[in-house]
Amino acid sequence: MVIVHVFVRVKPEALEAFRSATIENARNSVLEPGIARFDVIQQTDDPTCFVLVEVYRTVEDTVRHKETAHYAAWRDAVAGMMAEPRTSIKYDNVYPDDSGW
Amino acid sequence: MVIVHVFVRVKPEALEAFRSATIENARNSVLEPGIARFDVIQQTDDPTCFVLVEVYRTVEDTVRHKETAHYAAWRDAVAGMMAEPRTSIKYDNVYPDDSGW
Repeated sequence: MVIVHVFVRVKPEALEAFRSATIENARNSVLEPGIARFDVIQQTDDPTCFVLVEVYRTVEDTVRHKETAHYAAWRDAVAGMMAEPRTSIKYDNVYPDDSGW
Repeated sequence: MVIVHVFVRVKPEALEAFRSATIENARNSVLEPGIARFDVIQQTDDPTCFVLVEVYRTVEDTVRHKETAHYAAWRDAVAGMMAEPRTSIKYDNVYPDDSGW
């Protein structure tokens, strides 16, 4: 699997709008055949910090995701909501193996 | 859900031993009724960096996990394998809701 953690810090006044737009994107993303999970989590002690936990089956699936209408809509909707540019880190799965997602 | 990301940097010479011990702990942890996921991932561009992605149903389940024999065995086995003390961050789930784990 190709796992991408995307780190987003949101402007406090945009928290609810960011949550709504990001839930909508996640709902559509999990319908993509190449996406095994697309979790959105919010830091307990700092609710302005979110992580998108994206689990793709292949590298090609990460490219396909960025070609979807829902990704483009999310990217444009949240552009002005971020307190700083988002960052990401890529991971490989150790456990479970590919059959466990 | 109570989601905990545990960040571990491993000494290069201990990589394989850490992977083995951590897979064994994850295999046992997912059998705990209070644990929905217990993923282990390894940073693609720096294989010495791991994240344990632990998804608990309640705070009490995080306490129960630390009382298990497999947690104690893992903690003791990996103590000397870490290049620095491990850290963690707690998150709440935004998507999916609790029924999606």
